[in-house]
Amino acid sequence: MVAATLGVMLAVTVTTPGGPEALVLAEVPDPSPGADEVVLDVVAAGVNRADLLQRQGHYPPPPGAPAYLGLECSGRVAAVGANVTGWAVGDQACALLSGGGYAARVAVPAGQLLPVPAGVSLVDAAALPEVACTVWSNVFMSAGLAPGQWLLVHGGSSGIGTMAIQLARAIGAHVAVTAGSAEKLDVCRSLGAEVLVNYRDEDFVAVIRAATAEDRETGPRRGGPGADVILDNMGAKYLARNVEALAAYGRLVVIGLQGGTRAELDLGLLLRKRAAIIATSLRARPIDEKATIVAAVREHVWPMIEAGAVRPIVHARMPLADVADAHRLLESSTHIGKVLLTL
Amino acid sequence: MVAATLGVMLAVTVTTPGGPEALVLAEVPDPSPGADEVVLDVVAAGVNRADLLQRQGHYPPPPGAPAYLGLECSGRVAAVGANVTGWAVGDQACALLSGGGYAARVAVPAGQLLPVPAGVSLVDAAALPEVACTVWSNVFMSAGLAPGQWLLVHGGSSGIGTMAIQLARAIGAHVAVTAGSAEKLDVCRSLGAEVLVNYRDEDFVAVIRAATAEDRETGPRRGGPGADVILDNMGAKYLARNVEALAAYGRLVVIGLQGGTRAELDLGLLLRKRAAIIATSLRARPIDEKATIVAAVREHVWPMIEAGAVRPIVHARMPLADVADAHRLLESSTHIGKVLLTL
Repeated sequence: MVAATLGVMLAVTVTTPGGPEALVLAEVPDPSPGADEVVLDVVAAGVNRADLLQRQGHYPPPPGAPAYLGLECSGRVAAVGANVTGWAVGDQACALLSGGGYAARVAVPAGQLLPVPAGVSLVDAAALPEVACTVWSNVFMSAGLAPGQWLLVHGGSSGIGTMAIQLARAIGAHVAVTAGSAEKLDVCRSLGAEVLVNYRDEDFVAVIRAATAEDRETGPRRGGPGADVILDNMGAKYLARNVEALAAYGRLVVIGLQGGTRAELDLGLLLRKRAAIIATSLRARPIDEKATIVAAVREHVWPMIEAGAVRPIVHARMPLADVADAHRLLESSTHIGKVLLTL
Repeated sequence: MVAATLGVMLAVTVTTPGGPEALVLAEVPDPSPGADEVVLDVVAAGVNRADLLQRQGHYPPPPGAPAYLGLECSGRVAAVGANVTGWAVGDQACALLSGGGYAARVAVPAGQLLPVPAGVSLVDAAALPEVACTVWSNVFMSAGLAPGQWLLVHGGSSGIGTMAIQLARAIGAHVAVTAGSAEKLDVCRSLGAEVLVNYRDEDFVAVIRAATAEDRETGPRRGGPGADVILDNMGAKYLARNVEALAAYGRLVVIGLQGGTRAELDLGLLLRKRAAIIATSLRARPIDEKATIVAAVREHVWPMIEAGAVRPIVHARMPLADVADAHRLLESSTHIGKVLLTL
């Protein structure tokens, strides 16, 4: 089906890379769908930490991606490209984007669309694509977390963290988290995390090793104490301790570099543990890989959401005009779960 | 099943950890098979670099392993444990060992035995288990090298290297190697290596990137220039350059630390490439994993050997009494392929 009026739309633009004040609502050209794309009328957009980097000029969109910020959204189908099947104008959907979510409309490859899960509002569905795809592709598809194994999640109260806890518990894995306050750890506990580490007071290496040592006696793995999979957003700052915290055959998955990029690695320790370090990002992946990940999420994660085992954790829903405040909120790290912008 | 006379046997012992002169032939107690084990009368044993470390006291055998050196051998079945099926006294076999190959007899879990491939002598079969299991488990099972992809092998003329080149070519992958002399590189070329880097004269990063850039234009991968899989024995010394030499989605497999254990890792570069570092060793793996690997080698590698596509590359066959000279030869790094001890 086709065609919507093309003209101008509102989008959040970045005048000069910098602080939150650099974010300015402006009229920009309306997108039109490529043959394999759908255009959505955006109802809500998720705010991600990568957006802060892009605003500062450190994370340019990949070639072919929309120029504006925004890695996920929900909305209604406004136009459908010639080759697209399965979607019609008016359908509700959410989408994994390479950019462009902070706007009234966005064009997205059809393979990156997901239906709104039963039981989730159209607005809150915007909280799902980026975290579900990131966690599923990394923790499950790449690192192969299995029932009975231990997952350590740094930043357990973040959007990624709250999804990782729930998905790991839903498949029968154990979860340890780090976070920076008792309030955040309480939320992690309520979502199923069993080992809670306030990184301001405690050494996560000692805590995870002690906690898992007990479980190993009866558990399915003889890997010795430690985490089977670690989902890390800190990079250099945690590298040495993450390797220490891994069990034998452990897999450290680095998806963020908030603690820097370069650090010393003890390959001898990694080798004795027969362990692996995987570093990856979602946005730069080719379109066909994103479609594969989105299809896997629809197959495996969506049923967990519709069964009530996993839900979007939304900290705040703010009007698009308050985007600068939304960025300030993320920069303060006082939020728990996702921050959404609504249109 | 059967018993064999128990008594004493000859084995290479280490009086005081140190140089090759520490290796002393001595009479030691004969092994007897556990219920799940087979005892072999050893005909030949492979010499591995790990043996040099063990001789120096740096690489103690894992719990339950024979105390003597030797990670692989060939021979004839002398005794069979109560639970073992499929092997009978007198059968010819080769075996992946956790230790004990430098001896007249060795007890080995039945899952680590392999038949002698058609077309390979009983002596030369001792050159196969360690390299075939190491390369197959790491390059193929862990790192997933696929047809059309590029493998970079450091130390291409070593026992491991000569097996890696042949196996990669046999499945239709491309191979680049590093080695330290024109003579060694000639052997690598004769085995199928297409890109030859003398590490004394050239930078392997520049060479592999240039060589693969051409191929990428028509190849199955859009990972940009670089190696899809690197098999590394150098550890720290090569870490930064290995990460540079990886293509997008590349996997660096570290199986040796001849160049040290600690080095700076650029996680930002690893993340941009969505790449992985896997460090592993074969000897410390549990018995059931070794059996899984041995079964996979029998299924996938043995047919390639019997078809003539892959063969053991044997540099020297030396009497067990000359074990000190065999170690000196490995330490000189002048050998090409495997060094065997014969009984």
